[in-house]
Amino acid sequence: MKCNVCKDTAVVSLPSHNAGFCAEHFFQFFSRQVARAIKDRDMFGPDDRILVAVSGGKDSLGLTLELQRQGYDVTALFVDLGIPGSSDAARRRIEAFCQARDIRLTVKECAAEGLAIPEVKAATTRPICAACGRIKRHIFNRTAREEGFDVLATGHNLDDEVARLFANTLRWDLSYLAGQAPDLPGEGGFAKKVKPLFRLTEFETANYAFLQGIDYHVDPCPYSTGASFTQHKALLADLEHHSPGQKLAFYKLFLRQGRAAFQALEQQEGGAVLAPCERCASPTATGVCVVCRLREQVARAGALPFAKGGR
Amino acid sequence: MKCNVCKDTAVVSLPSHNAGFCAEHFFQFFSRQVARAIKDRDMFGPDDRILVAVSGGKDSLGLTLELQRQGYDVTALFVDLGIPGSSDAARRRIEAFCQARDIRLTVKECAAEGLAIPEVKAATTRPICAACGRIKRHIFNRTAREEGFDVLATGHNLDDEVARLFANTLRWDLSYLAGQAPDLPGEGGFAKKVKPLFRLTEFETANYAFLQGIDYHVDPCPYSTGASFTQHKALLADLEHHSPGQKLAFYKLFLRQGRAAFQALEQQEGGAVLAPCERCASPTATGVCVVCRLREQVARAGALPFAKGGR
Repeated sequence: MKCNVCKDTAVVSLPSHNAGFCAEHFFQFFSRQVARAIKDRDMFGPDDRILVAVSGGKDSLGLTLELQRQGYDVTALFVDLGIPGSSDAARRRIEAFCQARDIRLTVKECAAEGLAIPEVKAATTRPICAACGRIKRHIFNRTAREEGFDVLATGHNLDDEVARLFANTLRWDLSYLAGQAPDLPGEGGFAKKVKPLFRLTEFETANYAFLQGIDYHVDPCPYSTGASFTQHKALLADLEHHSPGQKLAFYKLFLRQGRAAFQALEQQEGGAVLAPCERCASPTATGVCVVCRLREQVARAGALPFAKGGR
Repeated sequence: MKCNVCKDTAVVSLPSHNAGFCAEHFFQFFSRQVARAIKDRDMFGPDDRILVAVSGGKDSLGLTLELQRQGYDVTALFVDLGIPGSSDAARRRIEAFCQARDIRLTVKECAAEGLAIPEVKAATTRPICAACGRIKRHIFNRTAREEGFDVLATGHNLDDEVARLFANTLRWDLSYLAGQAPDLPGEGGFAKKVKPLFRLTEFETANYAFLQGIDYHVDPCPYSTGASFTQHKALLADLEHHSPGQKLAFYKLFLRQGRAAFQALEQQEGGAVLAPCERCASPTATGVCVVCRLREQVARAGALPFAKGGR
C-alpha cells in the first residue's frame, strides 16, 4: 500500500478514511483531525491556557505532544493515585516525557489529600473504579479552576466515546446521554472540558504515539477487573469492519441530532440542582460532595484500631 | 435438559429466561408473554375486533393462532402483492391455515388497486422494499378503519423491534425513534396498532410455529436483496450471547426512558402536521399521499407505449 499523499510506502492503513499514509503524512492527517475537532467544537484558541490530564498512556501523552506541536500553551496534570507498582511507574514515564519535550507538569498526590486509592478501596464497599474516577475528575476540575486554566483537556478517543455512548444508549441513561459531548461548557463550578482526540480511533492514537516514539505506560491498573467496555468495543469494531466510518457517524449524528432530545427532556423535567459542597465548594447535588464523603470514610477507617485496610 | 415446570425432557432452551420447557409448557410460557404484552401495553380487550396482518410467515400466523387460542375475536388480513411465484404460494398457505382453524380471512389485492408490486417496481426508481412497505401499511390501515376493527395487530417479534431500534439509534433518526413502540394510538386517521409478540424472540416464535405444526411460508421475497437488518441482528445476537436478556432490556428501557426524550424534542419542535390525502383521505404531510402518487406513476407508465415495465 502507498501513501495517499506522496506515494511512498504507507505505514498506516485507515479503511474508514479509505486511505493509507507514510509516517510524515499520517502525522499531518492526525494534526488535521485534531485541528478540526478544536475548530468545529470551538474548544480553545491560541491564547488559552490548556491543562491536559495525563495518565501516562498513549492517548493523553499523544494529545499533550500534538497540542504542543500545534503551538498551544499546554500544561500536563498528573494525579498520582498512590497505587503501589503502578502510579510510580506512570509518574516516572510522564516526568521523563515532559522533561524531554520541555512541557510544564503539575502533579497532585491523592495521598496528600487523604485519598490514596488503596486506602479508599479499604475504607469503602463501593466499586473502586467508580470512586477513583470521581476523585480524579474532582482533582482535575479543582486544579483547572484554582490555577486559572481556561480549559481542561482529556485524551478520550473516538472508541472511548463511542463505547461510552453505546453503553449509555443500551441503558438509555438519560442524564449521561444529555451530558456526553467532546466539549462541555465551563459553568456552575465546572471548568470547561474538551476531548480534542474525539475524531481519532484508538488504532490511530496508538500509531501516533508509536511513530512519535513516545515511551508510554501500558500496564493496566492492578485494581481494574477488565474494562467494562471491552465487549462493547469488540462489537463496535465488528460494526466498523462491515461499514467503515460507522463509528464516527454514530457519534457525530448523536452530537448533531440525538443529544438534543435528551437535553430537551432534561429541560422539561428540570435537571439536578447543584450547589457548592459544604466542605470543599465543588459543585454537588448532595450537600457534601462524594469526594469529601470518601475522604471522611478514609479518615474514620484509619482511626479505627482494626481498620479494614490494616488487616 | 429438563422442563422447568414438569421435569419432562425439554424441547426448547431459553438462556435469557434461564429456562427450558417441554412443548406444552413452552406454549404456556409463550401465551403468558403474549398476555403480558397485551396487558402491560393495554393493547386490546376481549370485546375488541382485532385485524391481524398476515404475510404467511411464522410470526404473523403464530400470532393469529395464539390470539385465537386466547379467545380473542380475530380476523386475518392478507395483502396480495401480486409478486409472481411468491404471493400465490403465501396466499395458498394462509387460506389453508385459516380454513383448517376456522379463522376469518380478508384478502386485498394490490393489482385491483393499480398497485401490483411488479408494476410499481417498473414504474419507479425508488427502492421497491420501501414503496412496498408503504403500500402494505396503507392497505392495513385503510382496511382496519373502513371495516370497523378496533385494532390492527402485526407479528413483529423482539428481534425485529430491537434491530429496528438499533438501526434508528445508529442514525439517531429522531422521528422514527419518537414513533417506535409496540402500541401506537388510533388517532388522526390512523388505526390503533399493536405488536403482541414484542416480548418474544425470533427463536421463540419459530419454535412456537414449528411445535404448533403451522405450515408457514419461508421463502424470502424475490425482490428483497437480503434484509438490511441481518448484520445488526447478528451483532445483537452476539450481545445477547454475552449478556442473556440484554436485548429485551434495551427495548424495554427505551420504552420506559429513552422514547420520552424523542417525544419531548418532537413536542418542543412541533411534529409534522398531517391532513387527509387529497385523493384517498389517508393521513399525509404531503397533500397527496405517497401511495396515491405511486398509483399515478404506475398508471402513467402503463399508458406509455414503451413503458419501463413492458421492456
